[in-house]
Amino acid sequence: MQFHLQKNDNQTKARAGKITTDHGEILTPIFMPVGTVGSVKAVNQQQLKSIVKAQIILGNTYHLYLRPGIEILEQAGGLHRFNGWDRPILTDSGGYQVFSLAGTRKIKEEGVIFQSHIDGSRHLFSPENVMDTQRSIGADIIMAFDECPPAGCEYIYAKKSMQLTHRWLDRCIQQLAETEDKYGYTQNLFPIVQGSTFKDLRTESAQYIASKDAAGNAIGGLSVGEPEDKMYEFTELCCDNLPTDKPRYLMGVGTPWNILEGIALGVDMFDCVMPTRNGRNGMLFTTQGVINIRNKKWATDFSSIDEGFDCETSNFYSKAYLRHLFISGELLGGQLASLQNLSFYLWLVENARKHIIAGDFKSWKEAMVVKLKQRL
Amino acid sequence: MQFHLQKNDNQTKARAGKITTDHGEILTPIFMPVGTVGSVKAVNQQQLKSIVKAQIILGNTYHLYLRPGIEILEQAGGLHRFNGWDRPILTDSGGYQVFSLAGTRKIKEEGVIFQSHIDGSRHLFSPENVMDTQRSIGADIIMAFDECPPAGCEYIYAKKSMQLTHRWLDRCIQQLAETEDKYGYTQNLFPIVQGSTFKDLRTESAQYIASKDAAGNAIGGLSVGEPEDKMYEFTELCCDNLPTDKPRYLMGVGTPWNILEGIALGVDMFDCVMPTRNGRNGMLFTTQGVINIRNKKWATDFSSIDEGFDCETSNFYSKAYLRHLFISGELLGGQLASLQNLSFYLWLVENARKHIIAGDFKSWKEAMVVKLKQRL
Repeated sequence: MQFHLQKNDNQTKARAGKITTDHGEILTPIFMPVGTVGSVKAVNQQQLKSIVKAQIILGNTYHLYLRPGIEILEQAGGLHRFNGWDRPILTDSGGYQVFSLAGTRKIKEEGVIFQSHIDGSRHLFSPENVMDTQRSIGADIIMAFDECPPAGCEYIYAKKSMQLTHRWLDRCIQQLAETEDKYGYTQNLFPIVQGSTFKDLRTESAQYIASKDAAGNAIGGLSVGEPEDKMYEFTELCCDNLPTDKPRYLMGVGTPWNILEGIALGVDMFDCVMPTRNGRNGMLFTTQGVINIRNKKWATDFSSIDEGFDCETSNFYSKAYLRHLFISGELLGGQLASLQNLSFYLWLVENARKHIIAGDFKSWKEAMVVKLKQRL
Repeated sequence: MQFHLQKNDNQTKARAGKITTDHGEILTPIFMPVGTVGSVKAVNQQQLKSIVKAQIILGNTYHLYLRPGIEILEQAGGLHRFNGWDRPILTDSGGYQVFSLAGTRKIKEEGVIFQSHIDGSRHLFSPENVMDTQRSIGADIIMAFDECPPAGCEYIYAKKSMQLTHRWLDRCIQQLAETEDKYGYTQNLFPIVQGSTFKDLRTESAQYIASKDAAGNAIGGLSVGEPEDKMYEFTELCCDNLPTDKPRYLMGVGTPWNILEGIALGVDMFDCVMPTRNGRNGMLFTTQGVINIRNKKWATDFSSIDEGFDCETSNFYSKAYLRHLFISGELLGGQLASLQNLSFYLWLVENARKHIIAGDFKSWKEAMVVKLKQRL
């Protein structure tokens, strides 16, 4: 995997770049749709390519490990073969899910023992077996196994957790060094900066992660409940301590304005369930602002869903029709809203990139943040 | 609206024809996907055109009257404008829903008083207002308002019900004669043959309906619980008594083999919720037979969903992947299964047409019926 930095913005820390993987190129900054169990909810792979214009999608180790299970994924020849997505795939390590989804889990030096949310069965995730699992899934980008402490945790907890994450990282690196790429193409590790909202810990963690010279680096443990200004402050601190010649990935972020601010702070990659999850609940992100499509005011608004850009599918339909689909509980509502939101997110990062290259990113970003936050 | 009969099969009563409407041509025999509230469930209008290759879809008067309501549909300029479907639309009159869905309803000479399944509010459907409603929806083909008696009803009930349906038909014809096409294009009435499973009543009803010289004629009250051989027997009896130079529509039918047998008996048009409803439950119709995709046997079957025809979307995916989507409760499962089933139904009628024109429909049909019924 290679990262080619194409342009540094003069007025912000934004960058435009190009990641080259064995499954193709990714132009940055980029947003990555989340395909938890190997499917971006309500959207098929042809739609992801031709309508959303996704360049890379996420899979989730925890979910894929439970269903369909590693044996089936190996028999299929990996997730790309299984779901037909032939562009890059990044897999979350499962750490975050184990901590946030499972009712009972026990963290030990060895790893985490947790219960399946499906049948309550007990499992161990260790740095070693999570690397093996991501190899079997066939990720182009493998995330390190980390502990993600909750927002507002005590300093001492955050410090010990960070240290554990660092020791686990070394074991991840070791395991990958001792195993081979599973399906012939390169599988690259991204370590994760932790340290909660403590400056010294975040600095220490970023520097430790940076010292590993990985293909790319991620910032974890943000957007977990802390105030937005804290998220920006610690994103910047991490970016400042991570290598400039490697892509930086801010995990689980966020709203359209979060993404624009993150880009301005030096982030290259983002993922979030928000466009699909909120979409299924009737919340639309558009170039003109945010829409609650269930609102009565849209009942007779026959204008296109988002007149600001040309998504051939979502914008073929009117606000009134989409509202009707939601009010009537029609499945098509979730599909169209997800297509709209994902297409918009990809439009957003594509345009951020254009403006970085054109040299007017800062003024564009400032105007867009105000516009995109508007409730229509 | 015009119907051009292109070919009569020599060995069966099958026909190939062409219906011309102001929203385009329909090649018969045809299957019409059901878009109850103005959306074919889980499938968008672009997919209906480019993947399913639907030529006409159904809307339902009862559902559209309740949601979004006639006022909104009129403001939109009709359903075509509202949902973006620019090919022909047929609307069911709401009679069937009023009898089958609503808990409490009262049939009177004037019409039917029923309660909304959404909020329990009381409404009257009469032949006159149902014609007005279908004009407002903007149907190219308007169905007469009829009473659909339950399977196995008494002779005297069936006779009185048929007579009521005939009186209501005259009122429908009168109302349409006194009102204008709502949006500039022609809106055509199809009367409906009733008479349950009584030969004299069915004959009388078909002859009464035939005497009205409508643009097309429908057979209602079948596929409501009677044995399959009864359905075929009465379909044939109705077809034999309906004009040859007008399209014949067998309402609410059915399985792929029902459709092939119906075609052999002289039916030109079909609709059914089966491909979408059963699809959402994991039942697939394919060129090789019927698949319950939830079955464990598909867990590691990485072959395409239906290798017998080239649906670019559904067949892009494997049985193992589709099974995984269903087992995991992913929305994409319902979308892909609906696309498969609808595409297959349209493939089926297109191929029936080809074989009628080629002159080998009977042998093809007999082989297909055996094949399609197989449980894989």
